[in-house]
Amino acid sequence: MSAAIVHRTRTSVRYHETDQMGVVHHSNYICWFELGRTEMMKAHGLDYAELERAGCLLAVVDVGLRHVAPARFGDEIVVETTIAEVERVRVRFEYAVRRVDGAATLLCRGHTLLAGTDRQLRPRRLPEAVRTRMTALAGVTPATPAPPSA
Amino acid sequence: MSAAIVHRTRTSVRYHETDQMGVVHHSNYICWFELGRTEMMKAHGLDYAELERAGCLLAVVDVGLRHVAPARFGDEIVVETTIAEVERVRVRFEYAVRRVDGAATLLCRGHTLLAGTDRQLRPRRLPEAVRTRMTALAGVTPATPAPPSA
Amino acid sequence: MSAAIVHRTRTSVRYHETDQMGVVHHSNYICWFELGRTEMMKAHGLDYAELERAGCLLAVVDVGLRHVAPARFGDEIVVETTIAEVERVRVRFEYAVRRVDGAATLLCRGHTLLAGTDRQLRPRRLPEAVRTRMTALAGVTPATPAPPSA
Amino acid sequence: MSAAIVHRTRTSVRYHETDQMGVVHHSNYICWFELGRTEMMKAHGLDYAELERAGCLLAVVDVGLRHVAPARFGDEIVVETTIAEVERVRVRFEYAVRRVDGAATLLCRGHTLLAGTDRQLRPRRLPEAVRTRMTALAGVTPATPAPPSA
Repeated sequence: MSAAIVHRTRTSVRYHETDQMGVVHHSNYICWFELGRTEMMKAHGLDYAELERAGCLLAVVDVGLRHVAPARFGDEIVVETTIAEVERVRVRFEYAVRRVDGAATLLCRGHTLLAGTDRQLRPRRLPEAVRTRMTALAGVTPATPAPPSA
Repeated sequence: MSAAIVHRTRTSVRYHETDQMGVVHHSNYICWFELGRTEMMKAHGLDYAELERAGCLLAVVDVGLRHVAPARFGDEIVVETTIAEVERVRVRFEYAVRRVDGAATLLCRGHTLLAGTDRQLRPRRLPEAVRTRMTALAGVTPATPAPPSA
Repeated sequence: MSAAIVHRTRTSVRYHETDQMGVVHHSNYICWFELGRTEMMKAHGLDYAELERAGCLLAVVDVGLRHVAPARFGDEIVVETTIAEVERVRVRFEYAVRRVDGAATLLCRGHTLLAGTDRQLRPRRLPEAVRTRMTALAGVTPATPAPPSA
Repeated sequence: MSAAIVHRTRTSVRYHETDQMGVVHHSNYICWFELGRTEMMKAHGLDYAELERAGCLLAVVDVGLRHVAPARFGDEIVVETTIAEVERVRVRFEYAVRRVDGAATLLCRGHTLLAGTDRQLRPRRLPEAVRTRMTALAGVTPATPAPPSA
């Protein structure tokens, strides 16, 4: 077993992402998580656009966010993405969004749980190749096969 | 020939639509236009969700907006939608967004030009029934068939 | 102690809220939660636009969503909002988003935890009047003052 | 007089920007224009975040878009931004959005007209330094001062 891979995606705050509180509206972090997730997958041979064309969709079933400090227009940010757990149907990503400043100030932590589905959004197992690659990124060696009831 | 139908759709400004200028970000007006357009169509027997399922898509090809006054969180607004022109493939909608106050203050005027397409987004004629209904809403009686070059 | 008030806010899915999966993108539920929360507050004498002008902001510090079934363009939905807990600085709202169909199909459950802040987003106690009103909506009678360590 | 500077900002389509038509929703182009504009300004010493803090706001008063071809999830795009005209209060930016493929396929052309305002969104002249810099980027040498009535 090795350590989980941390993928870093850098972007800047866009003006339309702010709200009248003068900071980034909290809904945008979900889209930044998605950006981090799709960039991480692409960097490791799992192009989500291709996966969808092949009929393998990943639907978000659970999301959590904890906001620690606000992001502002003008900020450069980095999304740190890791794969925390891979099951037969579902995969859990975890995220930390940081400001690109000297201290890498933490802005938000969160997770998304995704389920493999077909085009009709019915749950289906993750394709073996996807599962194997994600498991490697999670830093876990899938040694013994899980029992059928898992 | 009769007057064009004006359809009124009322909604309120949502917090996430504001930006750090303290007013609604200009990109949201395009979504309000779309809201006005789909509500108008639905109210007149042209349910866009059904049209799409039947393979008739309307793709936006041209948009214009002129902002006159800002909308703010807390404002009630009304989108006034009219159909300005119906061609064989394309239809032009026009919009006025007003604040619901004593003066019905004008906030924005705009238009969208839409083209009928198939599921692959290739241009195709508007279905005859759609075209007839839209032409009636535009207040124009399509008396003599247009010449072939139209 | 009485039951918590459930506030119902009805709206329809807007086209731009969909994504290429053919369903509403999960980030929009956060905005629907916000819509339900601000409409509930307004209906009970807590106009958030006025609160902000008075210097009392509510910043989102924690969000959770569990998606049960997808919403689609053409769906009417209802956001059921309740206040679950009121502390000195923070208030927790809970939400259920349902489709307006015969079965009131559950689409998503979630919560947001908000903290009172000043204009500089520094935490501050909720104003007494706000806290009292929210506590009543939560169905809890704040009888004995909480101990200082709370 | 020299040629107008073309600023290129590259980004990729984000999943949440798509809609159920399977392409990028047209409202996102307005946000891409804004991205191109703020990146161009920043690259040439006009940091909009700083300008706002100094009390110089740029409010969008007119927008136009012509969609030529759809953008899709997975596409890399480039926003080409130019300053077309600088007046005393207003500045006009023009944009072309292209896919990053061999042909640099044109997806959309558009413009935004912005007006200088104070924090209360009242029109005010662009600061001299801003106007001079923008005029240089537009490739126009402001030779003779404009008459007072201009």
